[in-house]
Amino acid sequence: VTYYVIFPNANNRFTTLENIAYPSGNHVFLDFWEAEGLTDANFIEQALCNAAEACGATVLEIKLHVFGENSGITGVALLAESHITIHTWPEFAYAALDVFVCGKCQAEQAIEVLQALFKPATVKINRVMRGVHE
Amino acid sequence: VTYYVIFPNANNRFTTLENIAYPSGNHVFLDFWEAEGLTDANFIEQALCNAAEACGATVLEIKLHVFGENSGITGVALLAESHITIHTWPEFAYAALDVFVCGKCQAEQAIEVLQALFKPATVKINRVMRGVHE
Repeated sequence: VTYYVIFPNANNRFTTLENIAYPSGNHVFLDFWEAEGLTDANFIEQALCNAAEACGATVLEIKLHVFGENSGITGVALLAESHITIHTWPEFAYAALDVFVCGKCQAEQAIEVLQALFKPATVKINRVMRGVHE
Repeated sequence: VTYYVIFPNANNRFTTLENIAYPSGNHVFLDFWEAEGLTDANFIEQALCNAAEACGATVLEIKLHVFGENSGITGVALLAESHITIHTWPEFAYAALDVFVCGKCQAEQAIEVLQALFKPATVKINRVMRGVHE
């Protein structure tokens, strides 16, 4: 796997938020190239569930939109702690995901699960801290 | 309004994507402090519609979750061109939004509409280019 990690710390882990005033959260962006499963709605729904569970979040609802047979899928897991979204372009073997979780949820756990499922050959990881003036 | 713009260009406008290979998109993050309307589901639904329309996007579906009376709201507009999300913490007069639009949609038009509606006193704008190895 080729990684482009834009905002790592020394260990490629994300800042935990226990010492930062609420509300704040890690908003993480994943670009997956040469990824698998991008036209499979059942697989994507399960992936969103697994990612939410892995980072300690609670799923409120999952919505998927399938653009057509063998076409892209757009989906969101609304969480009690914010959201996970996915947009796939199977014609480019590309998917754009984001994981936004507040409080003590561990966004990096979701990243590991999503990578293991979609098996991208190239990954870009980016992060924005939300709720703080930085 | 106090602005913290993390990724501006010379004019505080976002790069247009006409000359960049598809799929790619502008993913923009808005942190609004001292904002209005954060407990009003009808207002938020209309704001998501207006923002999508302003940037030239097509709404597939809007989902809102209201955490309780006078409590926060989590919502998403699934777009043909990706998504707009919002999470509000009225107890802090704070909202976290993101606008992810691909192709020729103009994310900055959505920003202007959202600011005009929620009337935040402080705004942080951040941006990540999706679908490119930068």
